[in-house]
Amino acid sequence: MGDEPQLPFPFDRRVPDGDTRERLVCRDCGFIHYQNPTIVVGAVASWNGCVLLCRRAIEPRIGFWTIPAGFLELRETPEEGAAREAREEACAELEIDALLGLYSIARISQIHLLYRARLRTPDVAPGAESLDVALVPLASIPWDDLAFPSVRWALERYCDVGDRVGFEPFRYGLSDCGD
Amino acid sequence: MGDEPQLPFPFDRRVPDGDTRERLVCRDCGFIHYQNPTIVVGAVASWNGCVLLCRRAIEPRIGFWTIPAGFLELRETPEEGAAREAREEACAELEIDALLGLYSIARISQIHLLYRARLRTPDVAPGAESLDVALVPLASIPWDDLAFPSVRWALERYCDVGDRVGFEPFRYGLSDCGD
Repeated sequence: MGDEPQLPFPFDRRVPDGDTRERLVCRDCGFIHYQNPTIVVGAVASWNGCVLLCRRAIEPRIGFWTIPAGFLELRETPEEGAAREAREEACAELEIDALLGLYSIARISQIHLLYRARLRTPDVAPGAESLDVALVPLASIPWDDLAFPSVRWALERYCDVGDRVGFEPFRYGLSDCGD
Repeated sequence: MGDEPQLPFPFDRRVPDGDTRERLVCRDCGFIHYQNPTIVVGAVASWNGCVLLCRRAIEPRIGFWTIPAGFLELRETPEEGAAREAREEACAELEIDALLGLYSIARISQIHLLYRARLRTPDVAPGAESLDVALVPLASIPWDDLAFPSVRWALERYCDVGDRVGFEPFRYGLSDCGD
């Protein structure tokens, strides 16, 4: 597969009894290392017609602009995770509103849950993972300097939907289009 | 924590350099065993006013009724996963429609993505994990014999929403209400 993890035990790739898929199984003790898709949570957060963007201080895509987003942690709801990421990356306090979209990237086994949110105050500042943060008018979004396709997608969907209530979230699955 | 996994290596629980949370780190080689929330995908699948239910052949909750659902696998979109579970548990072919709801259970670090779907044909049969399958009129749903709270929740939401199009998915986070 080319993407075998570096594990601290000798594993075979085989189908455990009662299962239907190959798993990583320890040759010595039978431990099954289940691998699961990961969940990324984030938010398009607005204040007076502007959206909160962060310029990344870390790889990948250092120096490019993103919305606050990151991996959901254990024992968190997605809304709590999206609010935490905004706090960590932009010292921002969010009120999570609607689910803007669900973006799935099967190739790398990621599910992105991206919310619409309102900033509680316009007080934002770079966190440890950001070089800079900004409240950017929609007309000034740096479309050519965004960090990831999902950031562009979420911002486009936000520009479409605005403050509309009761909308169906957008769904996008990259395996559907052959990527 | 009471829920430490049985791992085939000697681990410490500590905060790795550059991280902000405790992780399981191998004392010998430094391998970090990240633990992530898991994603359950499922569907309320209908045919002529009936919904597809499966009676569980496995623990937990053997003998109780469920909608087809299970863990999302690597390199699957949620829609593909929900369709696969219906195929495995009920030999059913689904056309996934809308996201019915997003149910998060922070206590056990699960995110449930539950879809509305249509059966392509009424031909269903028990798969290996089901004792029985049935197409059940809404008025005959066995509310007292459902396997899990999320099954009841999804069926209630389906009864609310029916065939409506363009609706906002329901969201429920158990950490919000103190569970």
